Amino acid sequence: MDNALFSRHIALADVKITDAFWQKRQHLIETTVLPYQYEALHDRVDGADKSYAVENFRKAAAVVKQLKNGATVPVYPADKWVYDEQNSAPEAFKGWVFQDSDVYKWLEAAAYTLTNHFDAALKAKADALIDLICAAQLPSGYLDTLYIINNRDGIFTNLRDFHELYCFGHLAEAAVAYHRATGETALLDAACRFADLIADTFGENKKKGYPGHEIAELALVKLYEETGKRAYLDTAAFFLDERGKRPYYFDTERNETSDGERYHYHQAHKPPREQEEAVGHAVRAVYLYSGMADVAKATGDDGLYAACQRLMRSILDKKLYITGGIGATADGEAFSFDYDLPNDLAYCETCASVGLLFFARRMLEIAPDAAIADAAERALYNTVLAGMAEDGRHFFYVNPLEVLPEASEKDSRKRHVKPVRQKWFGCACCPPNLARLLASLGEYGITANENTVYVHQYFGSEVHTEPADLRITSAYTENGTVHLAVRPQREMTLALRIPTWCGENYRFSAPCTVKEGYAYFTLSTPCDIQAAFALVPRLVNCSNRVRENIGKVAVMRGPLVYCLEEADNGKDLHLLRVSKEPQFAVNGDIITADGFREAPDGTLYADYAKRAKTPVRLTFIPYYRWGNRGENEMTVYVRI
Amino acid sequence: MDNALFSRHIALADVKITDAFWQKRQHLIETTVLPYQYEALHDRVDGADKSYAVENFRKAAAVVKQLKNGATVPVYPADKWVYDEQNSAPEAFKGWVFQDSDVYKWLEAAAYTLTNHFDAALKAKADALIDLICAAQLPSGYLDTLYIINNRDGIFTNLRDFHELYCFGHLAEAAVAYHRATGETALLDAACRFADLIADTFGENKKKGYPGHEIAELALVKLYEETGKRAYLDTAAFFLDERGKRPYYFDTERNETSDGERYHYHQAHKPPREQEEAVGHAVRAVYLYSGMADVAKATGDDGLYAACQRLMRSILDKKLYITGGIGATADGEAFSFDYDLPNDLAYCETCASVGLLFFARRMLEIAPDAAIADAAERALYNTVLAGMAEDGRHFFYVNPLEVLPEASEKDSRKRHVKPVRQKWFGCACCPPNLARLLASLGEYGITANENTVYVHQYFGSEVHTEPADLRITSAYTENGTVHLAVRPQREMTLALRIPTWCGENYRFSAPCTVKEGYAYFTLSTPCDIQAAFALVPRLVNCSNRVRENIGKVAVMRGPLVYCLEEADNGKDLHLLRVSKEPQFAVNGDIITADGFREAPDGTLYADYAKRAKTPVRLTFIPYYRWGNRGENEMTVYVRI
Repeated sequence: MDNALFSRHIALADVKITDAFWQKRQHLIETTVLPYQYEALHDRVDGADKSYAVENFRKAAAVVKQLKNGATVPVYPADKWVYDEQNSAPEAFKGWVFQDSDVYKWLEAAAYTLTNHFDAALKAKADALIDLICAAQLPSGYLDTLYIINNRDGIFTNLRDFHELYCFGHLAEAAVAYHRATGETALLDAACRFADLIADTFGENKKKGYPGHEIAELALVKLYEETGKRAYLDTAAFFLDERGKRPYYFDTERNETSDGERYHYHQAHKPPREQEEAVGHAVRAVYLYSGMADVAKATGDDGLYAACQRLMRSILDKKLYITGGIGATADGEAFSFDYDLPNDLAYCETCASVGLLFFARRMLEIAPDAAIADAAERALYNTVLAGMAEDGRHFFYVNPLEVLPEASEKDSRKRHVKPVRQKWFGCACCPPNLARLLASLGEYGITANENTVYVHQYFGSEVHTEPADLRITSAYTENGTVHLAVRPQREMTLALRIPTWCGENYRFSAPCTVKEGYAYFTLSTPCDIQAAFALVPRLVNCSNRVRENIGKVAVMRGPLVYCLEEADNGKDLHLLRVSKEPQFAVNGDIITADGFREAPDGTLYADYAKRAKTPVRLTFIPYYRWGNRGENEMTVYVRI
Repeated sequence: MDNALFSRHIALADVKITDAFWQKRQHLIETTVLPYQYEALHDRVDGADKSYAVENFRKAAAVVKQLKNGATVPVYPADKWVYDEQNSAPEAFKGWVFQDSDVYKWLEAAAYTLTNHFDAALKAKADALIDLICAAQLPSGYLDTLYIINNRDGIFTNLRDFHELYCFGHLAEAAVAYHRATGETALLDAACRFADLIADTFGENKKKGYPGHEIAELALVKLYEETGKRAYLDTAAFFLDERGKRPYYFDTERNETSDGERYHYHQAHKPPREQEEAVGHAVRAVYLYSGMADVAKATGDDGLYAACQRLMRSILDKKLYITGGIGATADGEAFSFDYDLPNDLAYCETCASVGLLFFARRMLEIAPDAAIADAAERALYNTVLAGMAEDGRHFFYVNPLEVLPEASEKDSRKRHVKPVRQKWFGCACCPPNLARLLASLGEYGITANENTVYVHQYFGSEVHTEPADLRITSAYTENGTVHLAVRPQREMTLALRIPTWCGENYRFSAPCTVKEGYAYFTLSTPCDIQAAFALVPRLVNCSNRVRENIGKVAVMRGPLVYCLEEADNGKDLHLLRVSKEPQFAVNGDIITADGFREAPDGTLYADYAKRAKTPVRLTFIPYYRWGNRGENEMTVYVRI
């Protein structure tokens, strides 16, 4: 690691998103998503799966009170991943083992939203939840409603499958965000009490476990940064060092021995610093890698950073969908093998792309890297945006690149692929994850150190930082131009990422040096820089190691991946072909191109003959907008 | 149905297969497959899964003896599909609930083999098994070792999941075959005693159940034909009439109610005579449809026959792989929706193609139909032949059209796809099913009625029947010529199927009338007819409703589907393309053709540019021979 390249994202309070494209979405989070999700967490949305999340906190608070009063509290089994009305007692915990985390993610999103735009009514809702959370905490600091309600003796006995440390991670993230937003300490104190318990419980000569679902690592570093308490950083590092060691803790805690094959799912098959390939559950993976990058930077651990670089390359070079989706298989919601990126079986969980943005930002804070910033852009403008409907009330958990509604209905292998966004999931990780990312978008565009301001993403925004303030006026997705008004406080360097998609077709209004995908400007007085990146529709090849896409191309314009939908192009999208040198026309965010439709031929087998085809005008829409017009066919790749 | 078109297959004793291609395989059955499988049934094959089949009969015989002696016999659970050393007591039943059927299928294959070529040692083995089977039969006639060993009180209480009526069906088929082969009645008597119990148990005003896994229907008709006992036919018809009626018997027997959706798997979602689409478990389906055709013909039931025709068309027009495989999904080993025929996820169970031949033969016995005979040929020469290795000791259960060994190893969705044939399966339905089909091949080529001899398949053979004897000398797969020496006993019609694959390119040495795919010759004196069907390599299109095959073709020559293997063409078969008008060269059963290899390109995403390609000579081998040279890539379809 080269400390001179270290930088730090801008604190949210110092960024104001001003660009209409993103403002609209942040406004939707504030006015629709958060209120809707608040109702969902309280089980007050008709027709949506029940969350039980707030109900669990109420039950846990009641248990804490009873325990304080010395009452005898019943014990229920804590032995399943999900507890429903049928398989558990009325007074027992309900929902998924990680249900608490939905409340925390909501609070985190609310904190960012309050930072962006203070709203007393929203804060009142948040404070009510925080009171409830604090009331549910055991005197020991422990805070996970599953075990508090069901079985206090079971705490920390099944780290592999149950999500106590995962829920802690989300609690800590929410707590830091809320503290930064409001200066209030109630939730931060609760998180620290739980973190203290964790630091006291895990370590050398203590319990040598680590989380089954990672996130505590990055959360402990956040808490360390917020409080300065070194034990939190040490515990994060301990989790990373212990993970994947033999004998496996996940075996030990259940008196088993295994070859660790099954722990690929948890990225616990071998120590993180030895890992070469991104494997297993994709969300867990990128959360782990984010924590690794945090610890590597905070402790100067070059070996750990090298592993982060290898794992990032593994994703970027061989496991990343064109849409920035990751996780090619529904089995384990996991990465598949290199170049196995099926379109119609894709998993591409929204949360995984959100997590990829977490990992990318941390890597960019260690060193600028245009390929990483490109991948973050890909994930943000395509899979992340696609995750939420335009109404803010429907969400995709899975983001396929090809959808045939009949297959989703009739083929069990594709049942995870929903042709339309869903209301709310019992396992509702994605909607609040989206909300917290979009609400904190200001933290994802720019990083700075004492000499340099790096612009990785061109969100229209006002940024107050050192060594310069910036006002960015962005028409990045409209026409590829960005205007930057820079107000240096001293001589400094401005580094602007040159998006890979424009190739050599870019222009800056001021002299600069270009190096590895960034243009560097030395500035000492206020100046305006105009950047122009050629924004034209392009046909994009996928590696021919990806078997599904041979003979096909995708259409992109700038960072946006486009797709064909049945609503515009009729049924049987697979019969369409785009011309090799198409005449594109751009109308707003719609692209049309000339191509052909092959005549349908229902005869199962016949001697080869060229099929008749008729010229057609193909209509492409941005991928993130698909599925907003009812159930229909969709495809990103089209034959050429 | 038009009774004038009815015909009957030739009894095996009246056919002698003389053609080297098929003789070699029948010889392999006799000298290798049956001895090997006999050892496997006795758990004496090193490294193969245990069968437990013979062991179960021994245990059942011991129980029968104890019961006769008035001893108290222990009860074990009969509540699982499979019983292994771990989950069941040592003295309890072991293996799959349908394990008995492997013994019956072996006996049936042995009976056919004895008919083809008597061998005292083989008969002695068969007789030993028959003695054991008879000793295991309860005095009531009941004969299924799971319930005899584990729980006599559980008999016929779970028709949906457990396979008593299925095992009965295989017993009856074996019994009829052995009776025909040897004239001996021990096994036939045992089958009839079980059939009598079944006829006494099921019917109007009795138990209104039907088999979960069909085959009893066709077996009861066989037993009726062999014994003349009408009750057997009536019971078969009862099973067909009762199946799919509401309330569902499968619900009733477990005190449930359902909408029947789940009974698609069993083809019991609605009455067979109302069914339009081939659905559910493919083997079960074609066994059911075979029984429907049998009952329709035997009882003159036009409605039932119309259903058979619809279901056959559903398969032939929309659900049949080019290889004659059926069952596109591993989930439920089932048919998928129309035109959903993925190559790499295919199931295409060997047994399903064997069963398709059963169904086809029965339909041809009702009326000649060139499309049905074509499909039977497709299944026989491709999927069925592929099911067994050239050594007779390794078998495919699943017959994919595209294999990437890395995917079979790493992708759980393709784990059912084995890149090499396996030794013996615990669930060993396919190997003995193959053996019984190939040993009785003489029953699948020709059918006859009092006026007409239909030649549906051109196996080199000597056939003694009325109204004519035939000697067929066949070079059908070598050069497309067939010589038929016909010896009519009176004026008669010879009908020769014209294979669809030769189009109009055929020639007969005698005058004939061509109608719907058959050439009709009126003969009254001995004569020799030479048939020549143009046997050339062809590129074959798959319907463009099959999404996976757009832009690809398959190579066929006559009935044989060809494939590319890595052993001949190197890795990355997906980078190969065949020329649109290739120069084919045929060398024995190898075909070469000119084509291209695209340069591999590992860059995940880049602006579209044509990729470099180099001319290559592609080597195709018959599909049925794939996987005989170790683990490697294989594909039937190649880009054009």
